[in-house]
Amino acid sequence: MTETLMSQLHSFRALTRKMKSYGEALGLMYWDLRTGAPRKGVDTRSEVIGELSGDLFKMQTSEELGSYIEALTAPAAYEQLSEIDRKIVDEVKKEYDRNKKVPANLYQEYVVLTSQTETLWEEAKEKSDWTMFYPSLEKIIDYNKQFIQLWGVKETPYDTLLDMYEPGMTVAKLDQVFGELREKLVPLVAAVGESANQPETSFLRQTFDKERQKKFSNFILEQLGYDFQAGRLDESVHPFATGLNPGDVRITTRYLEHDVTSALFGTIHECGHALYEQNISKELIGTPLCDGTSMGIHESQSRFWENMVGRSREFWNRYYGDLQKLYPEYFNEVKVEDFYRATNVAKPSLIRIEADELTYNLHIMIRYEMEKAIFNDGVSAADLPQLWNDKYKEYLGIEPQSMAEGILQDVHWSGGAFGYFPSYALGNMYAAQMMNTLKKEMPDFEKKVEEGNLIPVKDWFVDKVYRHGKALTPAEIIMNVSGEELNPVYLVEYLTEKYSDIYGL
Amino acid sequence: MTETLMSQLHSFRALTRKMKSYGEALGLMYWDLRTGAPRKGVDTRSEVIGELSGDLFKMQTSEELGSYIEALTAPAAYEQLSEIDRKIVDEVKKEYDRNKKVPANLYQEYVVLTSQTETLWEEAKEKSDWTMFYPSLEKIIDYNKQFIQLWGVKETPYDTLLDMYEPGMTVAKLDQVFGELREKLVPLVAAVGESANQPETSFLRQTFDKERQKKFSNFILEQLGYDFQAGRLDESVHPFATGLNPGDVRITTRYLEHDVTSALFGTIHECGHALYEQNISKELIGTPLCDGTSMGIHESQSRFWENMVGRSREFWNRYYGDLQKLYPEYFNEVKVEDFYRATNVAKPSLIRIEADELTYNLHIMIRYEMEKAIFNDGVSAADLPQLWNDKYKEYLGIEPQSMAEGILQDVHWSGGAFGYFPSYALGNMYAAQMMNTLKKEMPDFEKKVEEGNLIPVKDWFVDKVYRHGKALTPAEIIMNVSGEELNPVYLVEYLTEKYSDIYGL
Repeated sequence: MTETLMSQLHSFRALTRKMKSYGEALGLMYWDLRTGAPRKGVDTRSEVIGELSGDLFKMQTSEELGSYIEALTAPAAYEQLSEIDRKIVDEVKKEYDRNKKVPANLYQEYVVLTSQTETLWEEAKEKSDWTMFYPSLEKIIDYNKQFIQLWGVKETPYDTLLDMYEPGMTVAKLDQVFGELREKLVPLVAAVGESANQPETSFLRQTFDKERQKKFSNFILEQLGYDFQAGRLDESVHPFATGLNPGDVRITTRYLEHDVTSALFGTIHECGHALYEQNISKELIGTPLCDGTSMGIHESQSRFWENMVGRSREFWNRYYGDLQKLYPEYFNEVKVEDFYRATNVAKPSLIRIEADELTYNLHIMIRYEMEKAIFNDGVSAADLPQLWNDKYKEYLGIEPQSMAEGILQDVHWSGGAFGYFPSYALGNMYAAQMMNTLKKEMPDFEKKVEEGNLIPVKDWFVDKVYRHGKALTPAEIIMNVSGEELNPVYLVEYLTEKYSDIYGL
Repeated sequence: MTETLMSQLHSFRALTRKMKSYGEALGLMYWDLRTGAPRKGVDTRSEVIGELSGDLFKMQTSEELGSYIEALTAPAAYEQLSEIDRKIVDEVKKEYDRNKKVPANLYQEYVVLTSQTETLWEEAKEKSDWTMFYPSLEKIIDYNKQFIQLWGVKETPYDTLLDMYEPGMTVAKLDQVFGELREKLVPLVAAVGESANQPETSFLRQTFDKERQKKFSNFILEQLGYDFQAGRLDESVHPFATGLNPGDVRITTRYLEHDVTSALFGTIHECGHALYEQNISKELIGTPLCDGTSMGIHESQSRFWENMVGRSREFWNRYYGDLQKLYPEYFNEVKVEDFYRATNVAKPSLIRIEADELTYNLHIMIRYEMEKAIFNDGVSAADLPQLWNDKYKEYLGIEPQSMAEGILQDVHWSGGAFGYFPSYALGNMYAAQMMNTLKKEMPDFEKKVEEGNLIPVKDWFVDKVYRHGKALTPAEIIMNVSGEELNPVYLVEYLTEKYSDIYGL
């Protein structure tokens, strides 16, 4: 390696490391805002965030960074780089190109528009008023159409948006996997609904004091291998996980007084995200590869731990006794099997974030088809509510009675996050596919869960998924784990077996 | 104002505002590190702090900032500035000159040295080993002597250091006020020690659960007018207050299970600092004047609220009933007068941070005289322990039996903070002098405390001190409040009266 190249690589590393540092400082400020920052300091704090974000964006789009990328991607230089440096350069180049292709003033207009529209959305949802919302939504869609042209249309325009959240994912692939999924899930949901064997759930709706809920959440986190020396559990209105660095991955939950499972499964869900980020290889710290590889793979971990472990019969065979000890007044008369069934009630509903493991995927498919209709088929914003209602009728057999419980329920579109929704269902599919391999490689997996011996399960994922961070693509991850590309059959099998058993189909 | 000048003023404001924003982001990271940041994330977080501090220092010493200062301090420009802009320019220039006068490499060496010496000090204190510590201390002293030459010697070399913490304070003035103080306090301390009328304190040393202590701290904070919408109370090993901006001023305390007063008075002390910073005028937000005017004035507020309010008979006449209700098992048989006296025990002791209100000032004078000896009389580090022990004998009548409880007890010198100690005693003097005026202007001050009507007292300080931030110098503040310059007689009178009463002298 020439001295010039070495020096450029050195400067490139220093600059990208600094960018990562700014991201971490911003991450801490966002965490703080959502977990207890004093209200009266928020305006000034927002200015601080604005200053640092602005400086970070300047670095991300600087000529300095551009010159390093140019030098390091020149074939003679690139071939001398280590494999990991190549991946870092590729990742930085991808972001750099994305940022540079949109003119600064256009992007600035868009930031202002989405920020205003998020506020507008809150009011529109409150009032269930589509008319006040959709002209702004239409503008956001138009900007995104412009961005797609600037970034470059992949196989279809919507592919360009998908790639932002799930690198390499395409409409062609999603049409296939969602098609197979829908074909099997729609009749399964219907059969579950018609079953005479519905679980009893009233014992879940009593008054559960926060202190004991908190104790149980902390206990379960320890059991899952969440490292409290590298994280902390706080409270927030919407539970979230944030990885500031692998040694500091914080999660939050929300304790509901009348629902003992809400905080618990929320905690386990965020713990899944956190296990991923706590276990990214230390060698990647400070590089852009020190992150989850995609939204879908990230979601596979939250959903594996929440649903496939946390809502399994084996899990409750192990931990129900601990819950009973904590709340003897409510659970001493309730059998573990009844508790297990109660935590797995499946039923068509209108609100995505309250949906169960089985019907959740259908909520996602509806949004996916609508986003595709918007960007690939030119459906206009004005026609979206009708499309929404028709699809809910078709897939879930129910129809919203208001815009608030229909198309206005999600925040994503008001912030311009088109292409994000599929991640949630991808997460379920990845998780089931990974579990299929896990069970082959660890035949006593269920026994381990039943014994509360969960660390080997976590360690399996550390090796296969977590440690790689963004150094492997989502496609590489799923291929390495399972030996095949994304295949929805595992999720179908898992859900069919689980719900046939619970509902006696 | 010419367009050029206007544009320079605009750019100057933007740059100094950005510097303030970086300071706030760093402040939040320090707060987080001390209140619960996960241990394993600290190394990476330290790098983040390093990146941001480095960028802040670059702005603080940039040619860009220098050019604005030069343009705005030119007489023709300066005279067109508003009074507040002049103060801002003066303040920024003062810092800029300080930063630029020390060569970057010299300062960098010093930062490394003090950082290593702080770690070394911990070990030396642990082992009570002066020999392993003093060669490094000697180096730090030598650097400071160099800095004094570079910054410029004021009346004496030590004056240059004093001015950093208490702008305008001099050895001449301190010799005078400390002289008067010592002359009166040494015999008073002796008389208190010989009194047959010693307070009983055993009831303070029982087992007090944290939850109730926390409740009481929160209650008292509300009573004092601490704004919980603009702050929060957390726990840390060493209590502190940090003003991120006037809308976000956080405090911490530490709950000791066997001492109910430690956390309480710690909370009130930090609340005093916080009341100051929460009430700085909104117009100063984002400028370098949005800060306490000096360490001494800051300390006057923590000590006024902790000692002159929190340890007053009137305060406990009002709040003792609340404490009794919280801990009936311990206090139902204890009279308020006995409780009041127990919280005001005065007795010579070796450790500054555990010293009472009366003897505390003597600990400070010893350190002041030693720092003066170092920088003005060339006393070498090797001779300091003997000097220390002699002075403790002379002023407090006791001598340390080990270095750990003697000269190695404080962290300050290992970090190079020479000139800082006097602030603590200055705070006591300022506080007593301000209270003297307060009692004249608010003749029912004691009655107000006795009624728990503390907000008017806070508001009086908002008007006289807090709102001005750094827009007035400490000398201007004390002159505006009391009509005279710093005068130790008020502290002497206050302490003599209070302790003569308690000890029946």
